[in-house]
Amino acid sequence: MASNNQPLPGFRDFPPRERLQSRYLFEIWKRVAKRYGFSEYEGPILESADLYLRKSGGELGEQLFRFEDKGGRDVVLRPELTASLARISAGQQRDYPKPLKWFEIGRCFRYEKPQRGRLREFYQFNADILGEASPAADAELIALSIDVMRELGFGEDDFSIRLSDRQAWINFAQDHEIAPSNLDSFLQIVDKIERDPAEKIKEKLKPFSIDLETVRNFISTAGDSCSENLSEVLKDLGARNLNRFVEVDLSIVRGLAYYTGVVFEVFDSGKNLRSVAGGGRYDTLVSIVTDGSSDLAATGYAMGDCVISELIKEVPTALLQYQAWLQTQATCEVYIVIADESKRSNALSLGHTIRDSGLAADWPLSPMKVNKQFKAADHTLARFALVVGSEFPDLKLKNLNSRTEETIPAGSNTIDVIKARLEAPDGPLLA
Amino acid sequence: MASNNQPLPGFRDFPPRERLQSRYLFEIWKRVAKRYGFSEYEGPILESADLYLRKSGGELGEQLFRFEDKGGRDVVLRPELTASLARISAGQQRDYPKPLKWFEIGRCFRYEKPQRGRLREFYQFNADILGEASPAADAELIALSIDVMRELGFGEDDFSIRLSDRQAWINFAQDHEIAPSNLDSFLQIVDKIERDPAEKIKEKLKPFSIDLETVRNFISTAGDSCSENLSEVLKDLGARNLNRFVEVDLSIVRGLAYYTGVVFEVFDSGKNLRSVAGGGRYDTLVSIVTDGSSDLAATGYAMGDCVISELIKEVPTALLQYQAWLQTQATCEVYIVIADESKRSNALSLGHTIRDSGLAADWPLSPMKVNKQFKAADHTLARFALVVGSEFPDLKLKNLNSRTEETIPAGSNTIDVIKARLEAPDGPLLA
Repeated sequence: MASNNQPLPGFRDFPPRERLQSRYLFEIWKRVAKRYGFSEYEGPILESADLYLRKSGGELGEQLFRFEDKGGRDVVLRPELTASLARISAGQQRDYPKPLKWFEIGRCFRYEKPQRGRLREFYQFNADILGEASPAADAELIALSIDVMRELGFGEDDFSIRLSDRQAWINFAQDHEIAPSNLDSFLQIVDKIERDPAEKIKEKLKPFSIDLETVRNFISTAGDSCSENLSEVLKDLGARNLNRFVEVDLSIVRGLAYYTGVVFEVFDSGKNLRSVAGGGRYDTLVSIVTDGSSDLAATGYAMGDCVISELIKEVPTALLQYQAWLQTQATCEVYIVIADESKRSNALSLGHTIRDSGLAADWPLSPMKVNKQFKAADHTLARFALVVGSEFPDLKLKNLNSRTEETIPAGSNTIDVIKARLEAPDGPLLA
Repeated sequence: MASNNQPLPGFRDFPPRERLQSRYLFEIWKRVAKRYGFSEYEGPILESADLYLRKSGGELGEQLFRFEDKGGRDVVLRPELTASLARISAGQQRDYPKPLKWFEIGRCFRYEKPQRGRLREFYQFNADILGEASPAADAELIALSIDVMRELGFGEDDFSIRLSDRQAWINFAQDHEIAPSNLDSFLQIVDKIERDPAEKIKEKLKPFSIDLETVRNFISTAGDSCSENLSEVLKDLGARNLNRFVEVDLSIVRGLAYYTGVVFEVFDSGKNLRSVAGGGRYDTLVSIVTDGSSDLAATGYAMGDCVISELIKEVPTALLQYQAWLQTQATCEVYIVIADESKRSNALSLGHTIRDSGLAADWPLSPMKVNKQFKAADHTLARFALVVGSEFPDLKLKNLNSRTEETIPAGSNTIDVIKARLEAPDGPLLA
């Protein structure tokens, strides 16, 4: 089935049109992160297996790309970023004033069955705050997660944030005599309470001597009163006029074992009710990863590129905004049409001068009919074609949007003329 | 030796200060590529081993991170991009007008002994032109390689391009009765002619019945007259006024077997004479990779991030330009100082409004002494601190560069005032 030209299953090629879609996401992720005062960091793609298997809980163990390198090291392609970040921040924390507000956009790898919205290689946007224990840090990340959705063109009806606190469950566990060592297994059951059939959940709850009703009751009645941190988060988001996007939902516990407090997920409000992003507090991970030699309170947020890309296609406001952005992605500003091949050297000289001025210029690398050159110019989305023809050193400048044309006489400063035209809006399209 | 906080040997962490250095390179690579009309693409990090072992010549086989995935596939972390690009472009060529001018900035992996300028994980900038057989495409990439160096702050005395043509060696081989199947082995000897001791080279040349003098003589006397393509490339670069950066040097053959014609390397002119980038024509690779089902003339250029980063530190004009750029990399534009903790909700509301206007704003997430807040503000390189204190709803705006201060009275449009101040240059520093 797979032809020679295909990537591995679950992996993607990004020729320019597909790359623009990633680039659109990356720009928005980065723009919002910077608006929130986050600084970019990056970690290695390859890490010691121990970091992701033993130290960060190991739930992703089944899905790891894991192998032995030529030096006999047990290594993995990172399945996510948090354990790497814990390792890096522990080593760097003395060099930066706290809290660290760090973001990253990079690739992660999970060996899963490839399907819609789930691939083996994907991009993930991570934003984390380390060295700040107060719920203000959780609120800051939840606000950022809301603004990422708004910046992508999603409105109040398109998504919501489901907010929870693992601490409420830790208290619940104490009240119901669940041993701390069993908490993870218990939370794995809660994590699937909306998806698994009731019979299956009842069966799984048996060893804990808790019935399903008690759990469901706790979820539906506890509200934000169950957690001082949740009230603080909601108060903070209220001051920002963002709490209309948020609802408390204790059924959210997040899959990974390292979460310790406030957790949240961003849900699409359409019929699919997919989780498109999520995050939470992981106050013990830095200590675990460094075998106790460092300790940093921490909270994080992550969004992958696959599910959100699907959602953009489904929601008209988001899709229109993306399509409008695409129209601004010209591959050059000026296309030089070489209408007289004997003037190629002059065109090269002029083209290089235009590029040196900072403008993007392109031209045909080998002789081409003039009408084909104009087609190539249109394809680049360039606003202007500069014609070097028999009338050289006079030049013609054509606006490819309005289809107007002017002569740039010999002796003019061509760069200044082009820059002035690029700054001015297009005139009306000539009939 | 390795502490818990270290990445694997030959891999790097990029906390924000180190990340800025990569970001600087990426911005310049991207800016020059776009000025030349290149479109961004990307490939997967993981590829089938066959693509890089058998199809692209396999010289990097010893250095591959290679393993079997959970599905029994023989896979590698890509050691470079060219074979992936050949695969992708073959599948896409009908969807894009030719020539394809594509660039990429991404990570590559080689299991080598880590040393200065050579790591196991590195970034590589690739620019390639596919579907254009004329030397104009080679000249376009060589011009781009020169402009990348100029844009980084390197001048005529800091680097040069060594230009060669494998076709000249193919002709030489024919004249000296070297079988085409032995050409690669012969070129491997030429590739090391400047580095290996004469005795070693003589020994290696024996099976070819050619003496070292003949080879050296060919290198020193052939010049650009040996190749019509080289004359064309030089003529093209001359029209752009760039040939002062270029010298013909037939000792350049490039290590990889897939090169077929014009090849070049960018050399640092300092005492280290390192190759910092290189490229060349590979007209047969697309056909090889697709088992003959596609065919595209192609030429490419690549620069890694390791050696060039060393060189930037060594050349004052380049270093000063980088340092000046660093000073522009503020992590926010406005830092909100919360001088009266009872006004935190007001500060949050204001901060969110500022971010919503597109500006980058930050503030302390938990209560902090005012002088510490100003220190935090200075650390972000923000130009302005906005003080929310007991006089709220009046606000104070402090310029952190000129150390001037003004009051923004209640009822003003705070965003408009801040934007106006950000657009204006700083006044003189107050004594």
